Formats: sequence, C-alpha cells, structure tokens
Amino acid sequence: MISRLVDGIRKKEAPIVVGLDPMLSYIPKKITDRAIAEKGESLEAAADAILEYNKAIVDAVYELVPAVKPQIAMYEQFGLPGLMAFSETVRYCKEKGLIVIADVKRGDIGSTSKAYATAHLGKITVGTKEIPVFDEDFCTVNPYLGSDGITPFIEACNEYDRGIFILVKTSNPSSGEFQDRVLHDQDATLYEAVGIKVNEWAKLSMDGTYSNIGAVVGATYPKMGEILRKIMPKSYILVPGYGAQGGTGKDLKPFFDKDGLGAIINSSRGIIAAYKSEKYAKFGDDGFADAARAAVLDMKEDIRVNALPK
Amino acid sequence: MISRLVDGIRKKEAPIVVGLDPMLSYIPKKITDRAIAEKGESLEAAADAILEYNKAIVDAVYELVPAVKPQIAMYEQFGLPGLMAFSETVRYCKEKGLIVIADVKRGDIGSTSKAYATAHLGKITVGTKEIPVFDEDFCTVNPYLGSDGITPFIEACNEYDRGIFILVKTSNPSSGEFQDRVLHDQDATLYEAVGIKVNEWAKLSMDGTYSNIGAVVGATYPKMGEILRKIMPKSYILVPGYGAQGGTGKDLKPFFDKDGLGAIINSSRGIIAAYKSEKYAKFGDDGFADAARAAVLDMKEDIRVNALPK
Repeated sequence: MISRLVDGIRKKEAPIVVGLDPMLSYIPKKITDRAIAEKGESLEAAADAILEYNKAIVDAVYELVPAVKPQIAMYEQFGLPGLMAFSETVRYCKEKGLIVIADVKRGDIGSTSKAYATAHLGKITVGTKEIPVFDEDFCTVNPYLGSDGITPFIEACNEYDRGIFILVKTSNPSSGEFQDRVLHDQDATLYEAVGIKVNEWAKLSMDGTYSNIGAVVGATYPKMGEILRKIMPKSYILVPGYGAQGGTGKDLKPFFDKDGLGAIINSSRGIIAAYKSEKYAKFGDDGFADAARAAVLDMKEDIRVNALPK
Repeated sequence: MISRLVDGIRKKEAPIVVGLDPMLSYIPKKITDRAIAEKGESLEAAADAILEYNKAIVDAVYELVPAVKPQIAMYEQFGLPGLMAFSETVRYCKEKGLIVIADVKRGDIGSTSKAYATAHLGKITVGTKEIPVFDEDFCTVNPYLGSDGITPFIEACNEYDRGIFILVKTSNPSSGEFQDRVLHDQDATLYEAVGIKVNEWAKLSMDGTYSNIGAVVGATYPKMGEILRKIMPKSYILVPGYGAQGGTGKDLKPFFDKDGLGAIINSSRGIIAAYKSEKYAKFGDDGFADAARAAVLDMKEDIRVNALPK
C-alpha cells in the first residue's frame, strides 16, 4: 500500500494529506441551517452537514493531493449518524482516487487489536461471507500496549495490502510528558525506543523502498523528527501539526529523505477551514471549498520552497 | 460517578464487571443461524445476534454485578450495524441499572480528545440542542499523548458526573515492552510515572473517598498492582486479565484496599462464553446465560475467599 501512496505523492508532486476533521463551527451556516431545517437539531442533521461540507472540499482538492486523513473522533462525537458520515466520507474519497488514512489511534491487547484491524483495514467473516468494514487504506495506531497490540495490524497490512502509522512523537504540547522521558537502559527517550521498534516492525511489511508500517511524528518537533528520520529509514512519516498547530514549512525539512520522499504532511483546519482565516477571507462563506484549494496550493509551494531538497 | 460504582459494589457485594466482548464464535449457533436466516450473511445479522446474546447474558447477571464493560472493538469490527448493537447494549444495560464502563481506549491531542470525551461521556451541541451521544458512565483512556490528551476527559467527568480509567499497566504479555522501561530521571518505570500522573489527575475529580479518575492495571501483574495501589490511593483500579488471560483470585489481593474497596475485576470470555468451557459445559448451548450466571457466582466466591481482606 505504501508504494501506492508514494506513487500518488510523486504524481501529484504533493507530499500532502488533507485532514478531514470537520467541526460544526467550520461549516458555513448556510449548510448547517439547511440540514437542520430538514432534519431538526439532531445528530442526523449534523452528519448531513458534515458530509456535504466534506464532499465539497474533496471535490476541490482531490486532483491536487494523493490522500486525505479523516479524524474519526470528529465523527464519533455525532454518534451513529456521525460514523455513517465518516463511512460515507471514506467511500467518497476512495471513489475519487484518494488514499484514505483513517486517524483512529486504536490499540489494545492482541485479540482486541485484531478486531480493530479488521474494522479498519480488513474483512469480517459472517457465515461464509467475508465483508469489508470501514475499509480504509491506512490507519493510525497507538503503541502503548507493545508488540502484541501492533502485530494484528501488521498482519492485516500483509493480508489486505494496507498500511499503518504508529504514534511515535505526537504534535501536541504535552507529548513530551511520557514520550520524551529518557530510558535508563539505553541513552534514548521513550519516543526513540518506540521508533526503534517501529523500524523492527517495518521490516515485517515492506512494499518497495518503504514499509507499510509508518510513524506519526509531529511537525512541532523538527529536531526529534531529524533523529527519528534516521532511526526509521524504511518508514514513511505522517507529520501532523503543520499550520494551525504551529509547524512551518522550514520545520518540515528534517522529515524528508534526500530524494524528497519519506514524509507526508497533514493539514486539517488550515485547509478545510481556510476561509475562516484572514488570509483566505476574500473567498467568503460560499467559497469555502475554493479557499481550501487555494490553501493546498500555498501549502504545496511552502513545502517545495522551504522543506524539499533542491 | 465513582461513588455510584462503589455503592453498587457494596450493595451487590461484588467488585466485578462483566466484559461484554462478544465474538461471533461465542454465540450459540441457534442465535446466529436465526439472524442470518432473517438478514442474510451480513453485518446486520451479526449485530442482531450479538445484541440478542448480550441481552440474555445481561438478564442473567444484572442482579449480581454492579457494572458491565463492553469492548467497543468487538462491535466496531461489524461496522455501523455493530456500533448500533454497541449503542443498544449500553442503553439496555443502563435500563437494567448497570453502570457501563465502555472499553474504548481513546486518546488524542487536546481538541480531538475533547471530541472523544463528548462522544463517550458528554453531550454534543447541534443548533440550540444538547444531545447525549453514546452516553456511557465510564470509559477507558490511553495516556501516551500526556496531559492535554487527558484533560478533556477529566473536564467531561466533572461536567457530566462521569469517570475514566486510564491505562497504566495493561494485562497483555508485551505490555512491558514500553510500560516497564525504567526512566533515567527517577528510579521508576514508565507505568509508575503514568501512575504518578494518574494520582495527580485524580485530585481534579474527587467524588467521595475515591476519584472519578481511575486506572487500568492487569491482574496478570499482581506485583505491579501492589506498587500501583500505593501510588494511586485515590484511584479505583479496573483490573482486566482475570480468568481467560491467566489471572487468579489470589493474584487480585494486592489490587484491593484494606477495606476491600479500590478495585473492580473484569472477566469477559470467562463469563460470557463460560458454557464453552469444560467446567460449565453441562449448561449446553441453550444454557449459555445460566452458565454466565454460574461463572459470576463462582468468580464472586473466588474473590471473597482468595482476594478480599478478611
């Protein structure tokens, strides 16, 4: 699966993934009002509004980027209708040729991780039938439970040609609380220890130059990105934290390999809610999707000029 | 919320939570066959079978235990119909007066954790309306992202009178891979460092003697349970790993306070699939719910004799 992502990045010359993390407050009033007029002040109305908003954004950006990353929490908070919108978003994006990286951050003990891997990457057997479930291309995974929480995801990657990104160093301010702690038995932090394991796991699911087993490292920590880039040479790095969270084009440099591959940068709010920022305000509410398109083009240029090797 | 759980444990004299983690293979053939006859080999049929099975087990045990713990992965693997069965299970259990601990192990950066906290413990605003979502009493949370991933859950606990159990030392064989690593700056392991943080977080949501902020520590690691019991005096410990995973009654001793409170023990397969084990085989397929009831009574006795202070 990673080779498909690499192909997409090359073809579109954009190591960019658009985060589809809709908040109701991002969605133009016209859309939410119409949904509420139809379905009342309900979870169903919220889900309809989200789906309409997502589709318009996807229509505006799918030719520019290889992938999208819906954050499932933003759908889960609207219950079953929200998760239906999530599922529809995944389907719609795949129809448009986009690779879907589901940001689900699941992880549990072995048998339970297997169920999550089935839900997001695999197929479930009912009677004699094998049925795909949410059917994403990649998902994100939490490593806190160790190898037996990760292995079922790796097995699913191999069985169904999928990929995962394992949380190594997250983009949030307090990520260092545990992740930066130095371990006694080696001169390394916890995030480095996790990175070392990711590199071992990566060898279990190679697909061309890179592995289907990637890592999440926040753009907000470029120095750690530099260290981790070396520790995990086979792993693609999914880099959140660009834009709204504070990461800049220059911060992204250490995440890329010498050939400009090895990393894919996520921006969510900075793209999907671009029309709400001063820079893209001229697009207005009705131009929210065009604003998203403009923000992608600007991000692409920022990365080309400031981050990619010349 | 923790005071409600403590009351329930006292009243039913059972520090026991029944794990509702249905696998299709646990469900008597008669039930799945009927569901498939009605809805074909589909996710809907699987969801119907799970819900029927859950309800029968809940009917058989709700007078004996204060709480249930549905593991959402087991439902998520059946997609939207599965999650509908999850949601119905939560509703049904609450109707029966049971406290619902949703084993969701969510955790993300701040704004995303807020969405998860809303989904599982809170209410979402659509227009002028506040709507409860999955509406569980407790949920489990992964600490890897640090304080700003945890804080939104604590805020939800305070706003909606709910509780959480934070993963500290999980029950699985490879949990030590990261959790047992010794940290350089203090003579403590990562799980102890997480335990120390849990104890700080606990102070932010006290409810009687205990805090709404509890911890998950596996029955399979009783020595670590003893250490963590002391580190987190205000936190209830949710203890998975009893029974099928290998934890015995004696192993549970260190998790309890001197007064026999402070811990609640989960058993899933050992109860809900009891009829499949030799010990309860006499109940047969049709007696699966009675077998679950018998297994709860035996577990209660095992804990009374071998784990609780005299």
